[in-house]
Amino acid sequence: MAKKNIYFFGGGKADGNGKMKELLGGKGANLAEMAGHPKLKLPIPPGFTITTDVCTYYWDNKRQYPKTLQAENNANIKHIEKITGKQFGGTKTPLLLSVRSGARSSMPGMMETILNVGLTEKTIPAMIAYSGDERFVYDAYRRLIMMYSDVVMEKAAGIEPKEDQGIRKQLEVIMHNLKKKRGAKADTDLTAKDLKGLCIDFKKTVKKVLGKEFPDNAMDQLWGSIGAVFASWNGKRAIAYRNIEKIPHKWGTAVNVQAMVFGNMGKGSATGVAFTRNPGNGDNHFYGEYLVNAQGEDVVAGTRTPAPINKFSKTDHSKHEKQLDKLMPKAYKELDNIQKRLEKHYSDMLDIEFTIENNVLWMLQCRVGKRNGIASVQMALDMLKEKLIKKEEAVMRVTPDQLNELLLPIVDPKAEAKSEPVAKGLPAGPGGAAGHIVFTSQEALDFKKAGKQSILVREETNPEDVEGMRASEAILTARGGMTSHAALVARGWGKCCIVGCGDLDIDMSKKTMTVHGKTLKKGDYITLNGTKGFVYEGKLNMLAAGENDKNLNAFLSICDKIKRLKVRTNGDTPADAEKAISFGAQGIGLFRIEHMFYGKTSEKPLFKLRKMIMSKSLDERKKALKELFPYMKKDIKATLKAMKGYGVTIRLIDPPLHEFVPHSDAKLKELAKALKVSNAEVAKRADGLRESNPMMGHRGVRLGITYPEITEMEARAIFESAAELQKEKVKVFPEIMIPVTCHQNEIGHQKEIIKAVYKEVKAKFGLKKIDHLVGTMIEIPRAALQAEKIAGEAEFFSFGTNDLTQMSFGFSRDDTGGFMGEYLEQGIITDDPFQTLDQDGVGELIKIAVKRGRKGRKGLKIGICGEHGGDPESVEFCHREGFDYVSCSPFRVPIARLSAAQAVLKYGK
Amino acid sequence: MAKKNIYFFGGGKADGNGKMKELLGGKGANLAEMAGHPKLKLPIPPGFTITTDVCTYYWDNKRQYPKTLQAENNANIKHIEKITGKQFGGTKTPLLLSVRSGARSSMPGMMETILNVGLTEKTIPAMIAYSGDERFVYDAYRRLIMMYSDVVMEKAAGIEPKEDQGIRKQLEVIMHNLKKKRGAKADTDLTAKDLKGLCIDFKKTVKKVLGKEFPDNAMDQLWGSIGAVFASWNGKRAIAYRNIEKIPHKWGTAVNVQAMVFGNMGKGSATGVAFTRNPGNGDNHFYGEYLVNAQGEDVVAGTRTPAPINKFSKTDHSKHEKQLDKLMPKAYKELDNIQKRLEKHYSDMLDIEFTIENNVLWMLQCRVGKRNGIASVQMALDMLKEKLIKKEEAVMRVTPDQLNELLLPIVDPKAEAKSEPVAKGLPAGPGGAAGHIVFTSQEALDFKKAGKQSILVREETNPEDVEGMRASEAILTARGGMTSHAALVARGWGKCCIVGCGDLDIDMSKKTMTVHGKTLKKGDYITLNGTKGFVYEGKLNMLAAGENDKNLNAFLSICDKIKRLKVRTNGDTPADAEKAISFGAQGIGLFRIEHMFYGKTSEKPLFKLRKMIMSKSLDERKKALKELFPYMKKDIKATLKAMKGYGVTIRLIDPPLHEFVPHSDAKLKELAKALKVSNAEVAKRADGLRESNPMMGHRGVRLGITYPEITEMEARAIFESAAELQKEKVKVFPEIMIPVTCHQNEIGHQKEIIKAVYKEVKAKFGLKKIDHLVGTMIEIPRAALQAEKIAGEAEFFSFGTNDLTQMSFGFSRDDTGGFMGEYLEQGIITDDPFQTLDQDGVGELIKIAVKRGRKGRKGLKIGICGEHGGDPESVEFCHREGFDYVSCSPFRVPIARLSAAQAVLKYGK
Repeated sequence: MAKKNIYFFGGGKADGNGKMKELLGGKGANLAEMAGHPKLKLPIPPGFTITTDVCTYYWDNKRQYPKTLQAENNANIKHIEKITGKQFGGTKTPLLLSVRSGARSSMPGMMETILNVGLTEKTIPAMIAYSGDERFVYDAYRRLIMMYSDVVMEKAAGIEPKEDQGIRKQLEVIMHNLKKKRGAKADTDLTAKDLKGLCIDFKKTVKKVLGKEFPDNAMDQLWGSIGAVFASWNGKRAIAYRNIEKIPHKWGTAVNVQAMVFGNMGKGSATGVAFTRNPGNGDNHFYGEYLVNAQGEDVVAGTRTPAPINKFSKTDHSKHEKQLDKLMPKAYKELDNIQKRLEKHYSDMLDIEFTIENNVLWMLQCRVGKRNGIASVQMALDMLKEKLIKKEEAVMRVTPDQLNELLLPIVDPKAEAKSEPVAKGLPAGPGGAAGHIVFTSQEALDFKKAGKQSILVREETNPEDVEGMRASEAILTARGGMTSHAALVARGWGKCCIVGCGDLDIDMSKKTMTVHGKTLKKGDYITLNGTKGFVYEGKLNMLAAGENDKNLNAFLSICDKIKRLKVRTNGDTPADAEKAISFGAQGIGLFRIEHMFYGKTSEKPLFKLRKMIMSKSLDERKKALKELFPYMKKDIKATLKAMKGYGVTIRLIDPPLHEFVPHSDAKLKELAKALKVSNAEVAKRADGLRESNPMMGHRGVRLGITYPEITEMEARAIFESAAELQKEKVKVFPEIMIPVTCHQNEIGHQKEIIKAVYKEVKAKFGLKKIDHLVGTMIEIPRAALQAEKIAGEAEFFSFGTNDLTQMSFGFSRDDTGGFMGEYLEQGIITDDPFQTLDQDGVGELIKIAVKRGRKGRKGLKIGICGEHGGDPESVEFCHREGFDYVSCSPFRVPIARLSAAQAVLKYGK
Repeated sequence: MAKKNIYFFGGGKADGNGKMKELLGGKGANLAEMAGHPKLKLPIPPGFTITTDVCTYYWDNKRQYPKTLQAENNANIKHIEKITGKQFGGTKTPLLLSVRSGARSSMPGMMETILNVGLTEKTIPAMIAYSGDERFVYDAYRRLIMMYSDVVMEKAAGIEPKEDQGIRKQLEVIMHNLKKKRGAKADTDLTAKDLKGLCIDFKKTVKKVLGKEFPDNAMDQLWGSIGAVFASWNGKRAIAYRNIEKIPHKWGTAVNVQAMVFGNMGKGSATGVAFTRNPGNGDNHFYGEYLVNAQGEDVVAGTRTPAPINKFSKTDHSKHEKQLDKLMPKAYKELDNIQKRLEKHYSDMLDIEFTIENNVLWMLQCRVGKRNGIASVQMALDMLKEKLIKKEEAVMRVTPDQLNELLLPIVDPKAEAKSEPVAKGLPAGPGGAAGHIVFTSQEALDFKKAGKQSILVREETNPEDVEGMRASEAILTARGGMTSHAALVARGWGKCCIVGCGDLDIDMSKKTMTVHGKTLKKGDYITLNGTKGFVYEGKLNMLAAGENDKNLNAFLSICDKIKRLKVRTNGDTPADAEKAISFGAQGIGLFRIEHMFYGKTSEKPLFKLRKMIMSKSLDERKKALKELFPYMKKDIKATLKAMKGYGVTIRLIDPPLHEFVPHSDAKLKELAKALKVSNAEVAKRADGLRESNPMMGHRGVRLGITYPEITEMEARAIFESAAELQKEKVKVFPEIMIPVTCHQNEIGHQKEIIKAVYKEVKAKFGLKKIDHLVGTMIEIPRAALQAEKIAGEAEFFSFGTNDLTQMSFGFSRDDTGGFMGEYLEQGIITDDPFQTLDQDGVGELIKIAVKRGRKGRKGLKIGICGEHGGDPESVEFCHREGFDYVSCSPFRVPIARLSAAQAVLKYGK
C-alpha cells in the first residue's frame, strides 16, 4: 500500500489526532483532534492535511510530489464537497478553500497562507448568487489576487523584486489610489463596482509585472497554493526564525486545505482570536479580540483595532468597542463553552481562532497558547490548585526563559513617579527597557553590533523585522493589538514590548517619531514600561526584579521538592552571601578571594593588595601580606557567618597579578612611596608582571607555588575566621579551592602549606577540628584528563567552565570579537560556547573528569562554578553527569533551581 | 630463610654475576662477573657486596640495618681472610679493606670511598712487619685518617663546617705546612718519621675539631665506612647529580668491601685506569693512564700527571713519561690480554681499573666505558664490522645525545686559522664553545640565569661543581687528565671540555687567569676547541657541524634500514628544503607560509604582507593580496621543486595578524602612505589588531574564515605552483594544512574555498589532477577530542604539540618564566613539557585523536610538527602510537632518525 500522504478531518470524524504533530504539523493535528475526538467533535470546516513527509519529499526531489498525491487530493476534495454540499470550481454552490501552512512547532507569520482559493471568472457569478453579496465576492477575489500573486506567482517563483517594488506593494498602491479617488476611508467604503474594477486592474498589473496571467482555474490555484506553502518552508525569514528558535530545518511543514468560512459576510459575521486564559498575566478569564465583518488576517495584521470578546478583554484602546458576548450572545456562549471543554481536554491554556459566518460559529485553530513568564507561573500554580495538572507538570510548564522574565529588570518606580509618560500603548511584553530609538530592523542590528542598546519603533512589525526585533531591547509599535505580530513574537521571547500606541506618528523618511507635538529622532533615548504600556522620554533608571515575588517563590518551592542538584551561588562579599540566601542558594560555589578588594568605598585594602603584589623580596611581601591579613579575614568571616554552615567555596588568589597593578601614574607613585622604592623601580616591577598571554600565565596555583607565603596567609585568614566562629557556636564550612591546577603535585604542594596552617590554628584555638575541605577547580584540559590522580589530592572538584572552554577551544574570551560573530552567522558553531556549554568537546572533558575523579576518590563532591552554572542546558548536563551542585550568579539561581527540577523530570533522579 | 644481604666474590668464584646490577650495583655485579665467570676468573682481590636492598632498608628504617647483616658480614670477612691468608684487625698479617659505593648506574665521584680500613695502633706494627715498609704504612694510615674523618666522622655525621673549614681541609693544611717545613715538593718526599708524626697530629686535630677520637678498632672502622657509603646516597651532590641524570632516588647504592691491594708499595707497584678503546675518538687501541707507586685516587684526582700505558695513550702532556708496557712489560701483557678478553666477553668498550702490587696485577673494576658521540658512532660502526655486534645492537649503542655531539657547533676553521691559541690542554670533550670566563659553579649559574653563556675555568673540578658545569657552555681546567672528574663528567654530557691545561695560572681571589703573561678576568670572552684542546682569547665564530660527516651518514643509513617512522623536517624556504634533503629528511612536515616573509634581504614581500594585514575593506585587502601573490607563489614553487615529490605540508597563515604589524613609526607611516590613509588611521588599525591573549585569539583558521580571500589566494599560489611544475614533469605533493582548528565545520568551510580554486586552476592548466591533500593541525584540545568528526573532513592530521601543550596545561610558552623554574626545582613536574612531550596529559589527547581520527578516516596520515618531533622520547611515543612521520628542525633530523630506529628495536615495528 502506498504511503498515506493526506489526512482528512470534518463531519465529526478525522483520520488523524492531536498527537500526530510530527506528521500533520501543529495546526493539522489540532484540527483533527477538535474535529474527530469523541469528546470534542467541534464545528470545524472540513478539510485535509498534506503531511510534513510530503514537504520533505518535495525538497528532497527537486520540488516534485509523491506520485499518488494528486489522486489523494482529488478524493479528499470530493470528501469536502460531500460534507459541505458545495463544488470546488463549480458553478452552482462553489466551494472555496483556504490553504495554510502548519509546522510541528508554531512559526507565527513565517510561512504562507492563501484564502479564497477557487474564485475564478466561472465561479464568481455562482458565488454571488450563493452569497447574495457581490461586494463580498469581489472583496474576496481582490484578496485572493493580492495574496496569490505575491505568495505564489512572485515569492514561490523565486522572483526578487526591488524593495517596495513587489507585486503586493504595487497592488496596494492601486487600491490606495482608488480609495483616495473615491474619498474612501476604509476598505469597506469601496463599493462592489469599485472592487470589481479593482480586480480587473489587479489582474492587468499582475500580467504586466510578473509576465503571467492570473490563473483562472480552481485546481491550478490550489496546486499553486500548496506548492507556495511548501516553498515558504525554506523562505529566508522562515530559515532565520528557525535559526533563532533552534527549530530543525529538516522538519518541514504540513499544508492544511480547508473549506472557507467567512467572517466578512456582513454584520452577522465576525472573526476572532482568543486565549482560554489571559496570556499577559495568567488570570483565569476567557480573553480575546474580534472584528465584525472581517477575515482572520485583519485581526492579526492590526489594521483595525479589534474589539474585546468580553469585559475581561477590555483595554484602554478597545473599551468603547462592543463586546462579542453582547453583540452575538448565542455564538459567544457556544464559543465560551467550547473553550472550556478545550482547556479541560488539553489541560493547558489554549490560543484559539474562530469565525462566525452568518451567526454560525466555526473553529479554525487551537493550539497551546504562548504566554509570558508572569502568566506562565500564574497558570502553572492555578492549574495545580485546580487539579488540572500535577506538580511535575506544573514545573514543566514554565520554561527557564519564562522564569527569567520574572527576574527581568523593571523601570525604577521612583524614577517613574517623577516622570510623565509621553505615550501609552498596550502592554504586550512585560519588564522595562531603555535604549536608543531605531526605526528599522537593520538599524537595530547595527546598534547591537556597535554595542548600543536600541528600541525598535515601527508602525507595525512584520515577519521581515524578526532579526531586528531580536537585536533590540524592546519593541514599540503604533498599531496592532495584543495578538498582533509584534505582541506575539515579543511574548514568545519574553521581550519588553508595547503595541498599538496610537498617539505615535512615525516619519520613516525623516527618521523621527512625533507624539503630542514632541518629536524624537533616531538615536534619542526612550524608556518603556512594558508591564504598563508606558513610554518615557530619556533614560530612566532600571531595577532588578523578582527577588520577593510571591508566585515565584511558591513555584520555586515546588521545583525544590523535585530537584536533586543543589544550587549554589557565586558571591564575593558578605552582602552577596545574604542575597544568595534570599535567592534560595544552598551555599556559595565561588568566593573569589581577590574580589573582595574591588569596588570598596575605602581603597585601603586594595592598596595593601597592590603593595603585596609589587613586593620584590620575600621580606617585603611578607610585610605586605601581614598588613593585608585583617582585611581579608574580616570579609571571609562575615561571609562564612552569613552562610550559616552552608558550604562556602573560597578560591585562592587566581588572576595574573598584573591585573592588580594600578594604571594611573599617581597610584604608582603612591605605591613607590609605600614600598620605599623609586618610581622607576615600581614602574619596572609593574612592567615585569606584564605577560604575553596572561590567561595562560603566572596565575592561580602557580602564584601559590612561587609565593607560598600568599597561600599561607589565605589559609590563615580562612581557618582563623572559621575557628573564631566555631568558638561562637556558629556553624561554618569553608571549602578551600585551588585554581588553575594542571597536576596533582600542585595540590599536594599547596595542601602541605594549608594543612600546616590548619594544625597551627587548631592548636591556637584549642579546637579538635575545624570543618573544611581542600579541593580544586578543574579548568585546565590536562587536569580533566588527570582527574583520577588529582582526586587523590583534592577533596572536591569544581568545574571552571569559563577557563575550560577557553583552553579547550583555544578561544580567549576577551578576543573572540574578531571572529565569533562570523562563526555563528556561518553556522561553524551553533552557540557561543561561553554562553552554552559545548557538550561535545568541553562536555567530554567534564565527563572524563567526573568519571576519573570519582574513581580516584569515592563519592567525590563535584560542582560547577562557571557562568554555565546558570544556563538551563548546562544545568541539565550537570544533572545527568551526577554533579552534586551547580553554582551561578545570584540572579540565575531561580533559573538553575527550575532547570535542576526539570532535569529530574526529563532524565530521572 | 632470611634474605641474602651480602654476595661474595673472589678465589675464582662469585655468588653473583654481571647481570645482577639492580641488586649488586654496577661495580659489584662486574666484580662478581670478572671473579666468577668461567671464561674470565680474573685476578680480583676477594671481597663482598652488600646489596642495594640493604641501602633501601637503611633509609626506610631510620638508618638501621637488617638484623642478619652483622653475622653475614662476619662470615664474609672470614672468607676473605681464608683466601688471602690475612686477618682483619690481626697482629700477624693484617687484612686491610677498601669500602666503595656502587649504584646500579655509575655516578662518578658522587659517593664515598674509604681505603685502608683496618689500620689501627694494633695492626700498624704487624703491617710494617708484613710489608717491610714503614713509610708506606704510615702513608696509608694518614690517608685513612683523612678520608675517614672527612667522610664518616664529619659528612655522614651531618656536620656542616663553614667553607674551607672542613676537617679534610684542616688536615691538608697541616700536611702542607709539614711539607713546607721539610722543604718537600711531593708527598713522596716525606719520610716515614714525618708521616708517623703527621698521623699523631692528624688524630689530635680530629679529636679537637670533631670532638671524637679517631676509632682504633678495625671492625668499628668498617661499620663506620659502610654507614658512610649508605649515607652518601642521599648526600646533597649525589641528589643533584641524580636529578640531572634522571636516576631514580629510590634505587640505592650497594657497598663493596674488598681486600686492599697496593699500588703504592714502592716502585714495583702502580695503579691505573684504562679503556679498551679510545673513548675520545673511538680508535680501536687499548688506551689508558697509570701512576707508579700511587693509590687509585691519585689518578682520578689529577694531582700528578699520569703516564701513558702504551704509545697509543700518549698526549702532549704525558709523552715524556715512561709507558707501562715498557716499564712493567709482564704486567702490561697480562693486562692487555685481560682487556681483550673482557671486551669480547662484554661486546663493548670497557673502562677498567687495575693495580699492580709488587709486579702482581689485580683488576679492581670494569664497566662499560663512557664515550663521547664521535667515539660512540665510530665504535658502533667498527664493532659491527668486526662482527662483535649486530646492526640492531650498533643502533642501540649510540644515544640520541651522543649523536647530537656530532652535530655540535665547532669553532669556524677559518677563524681558527687566523688566531693563535693562548693555551693548549687535553681535548676532553669535543665541539667548540665561546663564552664569558667564570671561576665558580655559582657564577656559571648566575650567568645562565642572566641569559649569558659562560665557560667554567677551574684548577680542577670536583663533584661540588656539577651544577655549574651543567650551566656553563664548556669547562676548562688547569689540572687533571682524560680520566679526571671534569673529563668524565663532560664526556657523559657531550659537553665541550679541555682539561690539564697546565699553562693556566688561576687566581681565585682576583678572579683572573694568567697564561703566558696574559691575564684574563671574569667576564672576558674565551673560545674553546674541545676537539683539539685549544683555548683562544675572545669570541671566535662558530659553525654548525655534522652535515657531511661520513661516519654519521653511514650510521644513519643503518638506522634508516630499521626505522618505520618517516622523518620530515620543518622548513620555510627553498634553501631549507635543500638542507632538509641533505639531512635525509623525507619531506617537509611544516612549511609556514607566513615565514617566507621573514629575514629576506628585500623587505618588499613583508611590506606587501603588512599592507594586506592593515587593509580594512575587502577591496583594499584583495588588492594587497594580489600584490602579495607572486612572492608567495615563487617560494612555494621553488620549495615544492626542491622536495622532488616528497610531501610538503604547507600551513596556511597562522599567527595573530598583529604579529606582523611593524613597531617602528617610520614603517607605520610608510604603510599609511601605501594604503593612502592617514597615519592616525594606520595607528588605529594596528591598535585594533591588538589582543589580550593573542595565542588564543584571532588566528589560524579563524583568519581564513573571517577573510576567505586570504585562503583563496594561498590556495591559488599552491595549486598554480604545483600545476606549473607538473607541466614541467616535476613531481610535487603539496599537503595543505589548516591550523588552529577546533571544529570540523571550520575545515569544511575552508575546503570549499580550496576545492573551488583547485577546480579553477586544474581547468586553467588543462590538468586532470593535481596531487595534493587537505588536512589540519591538531593543536587545540577540542580538536583532539573531536578527531573522528574532524577526520571526516581532514585528509591528514599533524599534531602541533607546542600549541597543544600550551592549551592542555594552560601554560603560555612565552610566560612560563615566572614559575617554570620553581615547578621543576620543586619537582611539581619532572620535565618542561615544551621540551619533552607530556605523555600523561598531552599524550592522552594525542592517543585519543589518533584512535578517533583513524576511526573517522581509515588509514589517516598522521604526523607531528611541533618541536617535540625531534625529541627522542617523543619520537618513540609517536612510533608507539602509529604515526606515519615526525617532523622537526633540520638539525634534529639525524636524532629523529636514530630515535625512530631505536623505537623499533625497543617496541617492535
